[in-house]
Amino acid sequence: MNTTPSNPWTLARRAERMNPSVIREILKVTEKPGIISFGGGLPSARTFPVAEFAAACAKVLRDDAPAALQYASSEGYRPLVEMVADRLPWKVDPSQVLITTGSQQGLDLVAKVLADAGSRVLVETPTYLGALQAFAPMEPEIVSVASDEHGVDVDDLQHQWRPDTRFLYVLPNFQNPTGRTMTEARRSALVVRAAELGLPLVEDNPYGDLWFDTPPPAPLTARNPDGCIYLGSFSKVLAPGLRLGFLVAPKAVFPKLLQAKQAADLHSPGFNQRIVVEVMQGGFLDRHVPTIRTLYKTQRDAMLAALAREFPATGVDADERLTWNKPDGGMFLWARLPEGMNAVDLLPKAVVKGVAYVPGAAFYADKADPRALRLSFVTPSVPDIERGVAALAATVRENMPVPA
Amino acid sequence: MNTTPSNPWTLARRAERMNPSVIREILKVTEKPGIISFGGGLPSARTFPVAEFAAACAKVLRDDAPAALQYASSEGYRPLVEMVADRLPWKVDPSQVLITTGSQQGLDLVAKVLADAGSRVLVETPTYLGALQAFAPMEPEIVSVASDEHGVDVDDLQHQWRPDTRFLYVLPNFQNPTGRTMTEARRSALVVRAAELGLPLVEDNPYGDLWFDTPPPAPLTARNPDGCIYLGSFSKVLAPGLRLGFLVAPKAVFPKLLQAKQAADLHSPGFNQRIVVEVMQGGFLDRHVPTIRTLYKTQRDAMLAALAREFPATGVDADERLTWNKPDGGMFLWARLPEGMNAVDLLPKAVVKGVAYVPGAAFYADKADPRALRLSFVTPSVPDIERGVAALAATVRENMPVPA
Repeated sequence: MNTTPSNPWTLARRAERMNPSVIREILKVTEKPGIISFGGGLPSARTFPVAEFAAACAKVLRDDAPAALQYASSEGYRPLVEMVADRLPWKVDPSQVLITTGSQQGLDLVAKVLADAGSRVLVETPTYLGALQAFAPMEPEIVSVASDEHGVDVDDLQHQWRPDTRFLYVLPNFQNPTGRTMTEARRSALVVRAAELGLPLVEDNPYGDLWFDTPPPAPLTARNPDGCIYLGSFSKVLAPGLRLGFLVAPKAVFPKLLQAKQAADLHSPGFNQRIVVEVMQGGFLDRHVPTIRTLYKTQRDAMLAALAREFPATGVDADERLTWNKPDGGMFLWARLPEGMNAVDLLPKAVVKGVAYVPGAAFYADKADPRALRLSFVTPSVPDIERGVAALAATVRENMPVPA
Repeated sequence: MNTTPSNPWTLARRAERMNPSVIREILKVTEKPGIISFGGGLPSARTFPVAEFAAACAKVLRDDAPAALQYASSEGYRPLVEMVADRLPWKVDPSQVLITTGSQQGLDLVAKVLADAGSRVLVETPTYLGALQAFAPMEPEIVSVASDEHGVDVDDLQHQWRPDTRFLYVLPNFQNPTGRTMTEARRSALVVRAAELGLPLVEDNPYGDLWFDTPPPAPLTARNPDGCIYLGSFSKVLAPGLRLGFLVAPKAVFPKLLQAKQAADLHSPGFNQRIVVEVMQGGFLDRHVPTIRTLYKTQRDAMLAALAREFPATGVDADERLTWNKPDGGMFLWARLPEGMNAVDLLPKAVVKGVAYVPGAAFYADKADPRALRLSFVTPSVPDIERGVAALAATVRENMPVPA
């Protein structure tokens, strides 16, 4: 007997795979007043349609309270399901749509239904930390596929594939954490190769609406709906605090995802689903989302300008300075410290200077790049972006390794 | 390779354990107009405090929208966490409280953190169907402990216990499905025996506030907080459509439950949590819950009176007539058909007569009683209760087995 009356608890083996989120712990530090945070993946609160929510709450409670406040179907509120199906850029039957408690829940359901202990799950390098956390409890072997600025390396995908691979998890648009977008050519090649391998794709698209100049190429799922599960979210176009997302799945897996949903929380809040339907009616998102794009593009430009100013490239090798990419949408920018520096070690020093970020190492299933960091450009104001980047530059300068 | 490009999906082994809810399928049938449903476990919509919700929504969106609509901490909104801790009848530190997306999610998290494939989980006979559904995907061996009208048989508990038993799931107050309540003597004996065995208890208490004449005995968790996880819900005292519940767990398991929560849906909707805090402020539940008790007691009495009228006991053996219990609170009453009858087979015939119930067989981990049925007395009106019981009686009479 491995328990005692004073501590009778035996944890499941999978609990060993559950660990506190690095980001979460960092965010606690950065909640201190005066810290400019490029850390959290928080949409700008300026984009929340508060007046519309208030009107919707009043209307739902006036016209439909008994149903809105009652238990409801696990699939989701039918008008919301239909709106989701209608908005997607390929033919989606509403019976393929499942409303989830944030798209994070979609990841939990996918792992439950598809991943056995010891089976293989493939992810990009790097990938969304929350996906790693959702998949890990089901105890698959999570393996990184080499990726570049255009996304997954399709030849390495073939290399990493095994017959027991359950799916590839991929975030093609303005990826969290890198901000990168998969090109049309890469999408096309990936879908073809996955079909050849018989490899399901789990496509996560929380940021796709947040493009700055041109929309991203068509989703992977639009190219092969029977081979893909698609995850979407209302968190970035309306507000995260309602916890509403959705998934679209083919008939081969939908019933099991629905049953897993029912066992997980019966259904997502019907009141919240009705609020979203009320707000979305009459094409609200078509007017609202462009305002988010404009704001976030301004913020991205402010961060790019501040980085260029604070980290001049002239006369310095790329390995001897901070480098960064230029995302075409979304919320994040990916940067890399000079050679010999470590983003985890540097963070407390940055916090002393009044700025925070997320070390990139958190986002790797394996073989983390210790120099990488994720910078969110959407939460702080433009003046704070400028001050924060200056503080980051001072931190880097003062901690540069001494040349050998 | 066990997949083809046309169907690349390999399901996890646990998906075999996921099945459509019998109740859910039945509820679909009973949604037909004109059917009086004793089936669903739906609180009476008359008890939803709609005006208070409307005022709370307006206030939260006026005073606190940026935080209410933003991402938030996985533990829950601190004022709600503190309210939960304060209301419980034993000393609870707020750091032991986790807000969940309905208490159903608490069951999912408990199973993830405690149940390994092949490990043993004990349940009452019968038990809450949603718990069986939440536990099954983690692939434990779910074993029934013999139970009577006072709850779990403590000697059979000892008999069913094995060293790899992870917990006993128990619903002591006005249990779903039977409506029974565990006596003080049985609670006391159970907690002592569980401590001797080093057996954790998972205590589910969604109905405890809904007592009719006297409050139930103290929770099991109050007697041994380090050996118990306690699950609670706002669904029955406020409204299910907000999807808010909570769990209380000792330090030995809380951190893993929190990490599982984070991976499952990041956090429960912060907007909804603030609505509940606003509504609960100033002792609202102390005024509101007694009105629910009064209503449900009236409804129970109406059902008991209708049953006594329609199924007279005079001159008939108990095995030759419908029998039922008298719950002291909650939403359900448990009944048993005459010998030779089967509640699953009878249901379509009852629906033809205009009444529905849930066959009791759905609530057994094993060795189901085919004669049992669950009758909810809270959703229909008193006249509908009377009509529905009359329809049930006619169905039973017309389908009585012919004496041998």
